[in-house]
Amino acid sequence: MIFLRCDYSEGAHPQILEALVKTNMEQTVGYGEDPHCINAAQMIRKRIGREDADVHFFVGGTQTNFTSITAFLRPHEAVIAPARAHICVHETGAVEARGHKIVTVPTTDAKLDPDQIDETIRYHEDEHFVKPKMVFISDTTELGTLYKKSELQEIKKRCEKYGLYLYLDGARLASALTSPENDMTIEDIAHLTDAFYIGGTKNGALFGEALILLNPELKKEFRWIMKQSGSMLAKGRLLGVQFEEFFKDNLYFELGQHANDMSKLLRDGIAAKGYRFLTDSPSNQIFPIFPNKLVSELEEKISFEKECPVGDNEYCIRFVTSWATPKEDIEKVLAML
Amino acid sequence: MIFLRCDYSEGAHPQILEALVKTNMEQTVGYGEDPHCINAAQMIRKRIGREDADVHFFVGGTQTNFTSITAFLRPHEAVIAPARAHICVHETGAVEARGHKIVTVPTTDAKLDPDQIDETIRYHEDEHFVKPKMVFISDTTELGTLYKKSELQEIKKRCEKYGLYLYLDGARLASALTSPENDMTIEDIAHLTDAFYIGGTKNGALFGEALILLNPELKKEFRWIMKQSGSMLAKGRLLGVQFEEFFKDNLYFELGQHANDMSKLLRDGIAAKGYRFLTDSPSNQIFPIFPNKLVSELEEKISFEKECPVGDNEYCIRFVTSWATPKEDIEKVLAML
Amino acid sequence: MIFLRCDYSEGAHPQILEALVKTNMEQTVGYGEDPHCINAAQMIRKRIGREDADVHFFVGGTQTNFTSITAFLRPHEAVIAPARAHICVHETGAVEARGHKIVTVPTTDAKLDPDQIDETIRYHEDEHFVKPKMVFISDTTELGTLYKKSELQEIKKRCEKYGLYLYLDGARLASALTSPENDMTIEDIAHLTDAFYIGGTKNGALFGEALILLNPELKKEFRWIMKQSGSMLAKGRLLGVQFEEFFKDNLYFELGQHANDMSKLLRDGIAAKGYRFLTDSPSNQIFPIFPNKLVSELEEKISFEKECPVGDNEYCIRFVTSWATPKEDIEKVLAML
Amino acid sequence: MIFLRCDYSEGAHPQILEALVKTNMEQTVGYGEDPHCINAAQMIRKRIGREDADVHFFVGGTQTNFTSITAFLRPHEAVIAPARAHICVHETGAVEARGHKIVTVPTTDAKLDPDQIDETIRYHEDEHFVKPKMVFISDTTELGTLYKKSELQEIKKRCEKYGLYLYLDGARLASALTSPENDMTIEDIAHLTDAFYIGGTKNGALFGEALILLNPELKKEFRWIMKQSGSMLAKGRLLGVQFEEFFKDNLYFELGQHANDMSKLLRDGIAAKGYRFLTDSPSNQIFPIFPNKLVSELEEKISFEKECPVGDNEYCIRFVTSWATPKEDIEKVLAML
Repeated sequence: MIFLRCDYSEGAHPQILEALVKTNMEQTVGYGEDPHCINAAQMIRKRIGREDADVHFFVGGTQTNFTSITAFLRPHEAVIAPARAHICVHETGAVEARGHKIVTVPTTDAKLDPDQIDETIRYHEDEHFVKPKMVFISDTTELGTLYKKSELQEIKKRCEKYGLYLYLDGARLASALTSPENDMTIEDIAHLTDAFYIGGTKNGALFGEALILLNPELKKEFRWIMKQSGSMLAKGRLLGVQFEEFFKDNLYFELGQHANDMSKLLRDGIAAKGYRFLTDSPSNQIFPIFPNKLVSELEEKISFEKECPVGDNEYCIRFVTSWATPKEDIEKVLAML
Repeated sequence: MIFLRCDYSEGAHPQILEALVKTNMEQTVGYGEDPHCINAAQMIRKRIGREDADVHFFVGGTQTNFTSITAFLRPHEAVIAPARAHICVHETGAVEARGHKIVTVPTTDAKLDPDQIDETIRYHEDEHFVKPKMVFISDTTELGTLYKKSELQEIKKRCEKYGLYLYLDGARLASALTSPENDMTIEDIAHLTDAFYIGGTKNGALFGEALILLNPELKKEFRWIMKQSGSMLAKGRLLGVQFEEFFKDNLYFELGQHANDMSKLLRDGIAAKGYRFLTDSPSNQIFPIFPNKLVSELEEKISFEKECPVGDNEYCIRFVTSWATPKEDIEKVLAML
Repeated sequence: MIFLRCDYSEGAHPQILEALVKTNMEQTVGYGEDPHCINAAQMIRKRIGREDADVHFFVGGTQTNFTSITAFLRPHEAVIAPARAHICVHETGAVEARGHKIVTVPTTDAKLDPDQIDETIRYHEDEHFVKPKMVFISDTTELGTLYKKSELQEIKKRCEKYGLYLYLDGARLASALTSPENDMTIEDIAHLTDAFYIGGTKNGALFGEALILLNPELKKEFRWIMKQSGSMLAKGRLLGVQFEEFFKDNLYFELGQHANDMSKLLRDGIAAKGYRFLTDSPSNQIFPIFPNKLVSELEEKISFEKECPVGDNEYCIRFVTSWATPKEDIEKVLAML
Repeated sequence: MIFLRCDYSEGAHPQILEALVKTNMEQTVGYGEDPHCINAAQMIRKRIGREDADVHFFVGGTQTNFTSITAFLRPHEAVIAPARAHICVHETGAVEARGHKIVTVPTTDAKLDPDQIDETIRYHEDEHFVKPKMVFISDTTELGTLYKKSELQEIKKRCEKYGLYLYLDGARLASALTSPENDMTIEDIAHLTDAFYIGGTKNGALFGEALILLNPELKKEFRWIMKQSGSMLAKGRLLGVQFEEFFKDNLYFELGQHANDMSKLLRDGIAAKGYRFLTDSPSNQIFPIFPNKLVSELEEKISFEKECPVGDNEYCIRFVTSWATPKEDIEKVLAML
């Protein structure tokens, strides 16, 4: 069985695992205050060009998202997000469970159109409505699309106009930043957002996300909210050790690049055979549309997710490549089509 | 200034106020356990043909809605509601503040289409999604439309199919049940829903809504949740006294009828002059579309809400009639058009 | 049956009721933005000597308390309160239901000792603990005791030292400020607290509490939280009308004085007969200790609450007098002893 | 520096780490539905003698506690717990943050006295109080003490009498069950509680706790609450792999035994030198009382936590031994005294 189901099917990249083994018997304090976390945070600050940033390490993305929103917003404040955003769909209402409404806006490509911010603000006129206070976007998005620098700048501009925080979910940031269509650096993101996270789980860590707090308003007593949210790992250094590996050289980006290379190979191969895609996604998630019969055949040999039916005779499916996807798997898949 | 802004501009209907004055110096226990509340609850049970119902009195509708949802649902369970529903828009996220997501479905007339229930259920496939457990509808709706008996039956059928509670917000139930297009009785509603409330605030009470719990699963320890939600009035008998007046004869329905009569007069008059409406609403809220210039002129003499622009030159506004609207006001308004 | 069970057994003081009747058919906007609320708020600001205060009207005390705490605190912040405080006992966990821990400190007289603030702060050392951010006290307390000005000043001093908000629950503020042992004015309270409320329900209003926000940090977008908490009365002017009556002359304090006069008569009479009290409470709640047999006899003729057994043969009970208690009732009770 | 600060200073026991390395490149589905989790759950069911149990794996203890409480209780229901319980102190109000009050009872040894259950139930009489619905205890407790079988049976009896769930926090269950004073088996615990968890983090896992749901009422849709609580690890099999190692032979208990052996050596040595202890704790946490001067000297060479001052001249400190504590460290410490 070939796995194109998700980018977290395996354990960790061997270099990361080796670092965990090597440091295993070190004795440190817990909860992220150990030398590895301190060092990894400093590496990240340097790499993103923001020495003033606060860096907090989390085990997973859902945790990172709801802990941040819990910390950032007052009870009546709401989040604006594309209807396809992870927090709107696949987190079992974790944001609402902490008391906040997400005002969703419709999209075809899972990207927020800056004008939708204006429309949303206009609609929420007084104290009978929630008050939008934060914009949530993902890069890459849940449909594998990505933001251009000019788009992010425009979104930022609207956020500043209305006093909204801009938060970027970077679960797949490695794939975004190494996409052939990307024109941003991680420094750009660190200068255009109020907070974002650098995803590790989907890019070769055993687990781990690094949340970057840039706006000083968002930093105060953040660790209290982390602990209360169950987001503080006892042996916190496990997160520091992994992010040290990601950022001591260039591993973080190399793994994203590999996933993108494999996905490009697959995408080009599928397109060459004449199939269409749900959306144009130049990253490690692609959404080809196949005849139902073909989908059934593929399911016997490949593990993947089914997105949605397209008319009566076709189905859109999702293929996800990762840091661990071997080129041979792609070739085998193309041979099946 | 003529008030067509809402149906809660005045105090109480004189008969209700008189009852409050008359009982003012009685000494009773508090929190809704007094003889007036007990008596009013019994009157209601009889009137709706459900001797088994639990009846709880609330001061306002927002309270009634979120207290009920808090009591009925587990943390991961969600509400399905039309996007125009009061809980989705005008309650400042009170439902989300208690931890529950509202899954909204689009509508043009603020009414839920039964098929939308099926679609919503299909989409929420596993534990990564919230679990829809309750359907929320209003009668009349927030656009003044209402449900036919066959529609409510069909919604109930889907709810039973999927194990969903059906809750009906009756803030304007008096107007619904006395509408010329209505084909339901209050007994029908008490047999087709799991819970609903009989709205008093918008029908001539000083304040007050009577929540009716029909499904035994929803009754357990409800008063604990009421108290925790701040929904238990110390001098609870004020609510009982008012609902006794509503239901000892036929006052509740007479007041709804008056509001509808005034609105029919107004609606017919506006239509006769050739104006269009946003939607066909045979109840005490109507949504005529006027040229912008006319709207500006009307604003100087009438207090009303502006709904939304219609193209560049027209505006949809809302006129609401009430138990207290005098016929002369309607005639004056028609004369202005 | 004589009612000494609570101070909210009747409706409203006749002067207040009359004002409600007189204004009944006025047409105003809702939700507390009407002329009566605006006027009453201005009267209160003047009376408390704080023109800068924000005034918000609520229907009940539980609502006022949890809405305030919800608005004032971030999720990890906690309240310090005496273990007997109303929010710790009789509000069904309404504060915890909004996510905040109450750190309770033991007391014998329901009053907070300033040193308990220091001890509590010392104990909560880092992000593994909640962070105390607010002190909650009641005047009079739940045991009918009251704070001296010097005590309130000392509590305020500690609050300032640790950056804590000081909130005073004034459900029975009228009784506190007219107690023979009181040495504070309402102006003092308005200068020593960050927020407090002036209780109406237990002092002759049909219902109603006036929350006074003094610290500017606490004012921002408070109405959003009110609405979300279900604390915004549709026909809000009912609250304004009542507080106008309280403060246009001196009615608020006269009613408190009457309750205290009746309670003094009762207390002195009981003491003269040689009975003891649980605590010395110079206000409208008293806690005499009677032989069990006497308690049983009294229960047949008087409605009151039983507090706690004292040894095997005696019981402490609570008598509450109110604005409406007639002198004859007190005389009859004393005759029974 | 010798580490006696906590039992999670190192990474994982080598055998566990090796299993993680060995399975690293396996491709599995995520979120705990992989073969390792399924297998580990089955091993545990067999080991505890409850084939009917549901087993869920968590990353940490705070998560396990609040996710369980969130899933088990309705909004007005509360937890009874000893005031020293982890959830009352060191979880930053995580339980209250999900809306539930913890009713704390005082203790000297961190153990719940069964009579305290009766007293608590008596006090919470009606809907103005929260409703206790669950008892929370830890074994070993936060002071290193443990429950005898007869004590647990008695607590269970009271829980059954009042319809309370009994939950046992087993963060240090390995130490409890291998203590010289223990008279319970893990099977006993699985027959006397409604839910408990088997702690891994403090007993040699990289991280991980196994929650065991025994009462069928507690099982329904638990995974929804897990996901919403951020408690579902993407690469869930990391937890399964570790618990397979714990339970395929006897590793779980051997590691607890080692920690206890080291602590016994230390405790006996300290006692032999004439020092007292705060409480008698026959497990891997001990609380000796030393002169202040000695404490200062020890701090230079040993990492440990300071518990509380004892009079003016002494201090109670905490020493924690673990699966990884070498005998030589104990000998060195004893030599310093």
